[in-house]
Amino acid sequence: MNKAFKALSDPTRRKILELLKDNDLTAGEISECFNISKPSISHHLNILSNAELVLRDKQGQHVIYSLNTTALQDILKWTFDFVEGGNKNENKN
Amino acid sequence: MNKAFKALSDPTRRKILELLKDNDLTAGEISECFNISKPSISHHLNILSNAELVLRDKQGQHVIYSLNTTALQDILKWTFDFVEGGNKNENKN
Repeated sequence: MNKAFKALSDPTRRKILELLKDNDLTAGEISECFNISKPSISHHLNILSNAELVLRDKQGQHVIYSLNTTALQDILKWTFDFVEGGNKNENKN
Repeated sequence: MNKAFKALSDPTRRKILELLKDNDLTAGEISECFNISKPSISHHLNILSNAELVLRDKQGQHVIYSLNTTALQDILKWTFDFVEGGNKNENKN
């Protein structure tokens, strides 16, 4: 979860994930949505891939990126437990 | 959310939040649960406080730390939207 949380701490990487929520995309298609260099997008995609937040699928000359929700499910579970149990102060008496 | 995700990327900080899920605690009580120095715990608490994941309440000579679930609720909402909408590949046809 360390890698996933770290990966999510960057707004560009969260935006990439939001794009992939709608469609699987190539690195080129992703970089068209940003005003930053392709190598920089490639770097962000590597971080997301290492954190297992995106999957890469080589199709011919292209690599297609898609969302991998498994790591996000772990984060959801961990966070839900806090929000669910977080009203202890209200229920203390 | 950048700060919150960054703060959560460290296992010691996640463990601190887990301790605070059960009880509000002083920095001293928190540091008793770890094999790391008090200044180091204090550093982690500052990061959690800056990320608005914990609240500080000065009571006499002590500062009591408690969980602030607001930032976690934002993360929960953001993540839920992915997991909820993440089965597009299954529903594509």
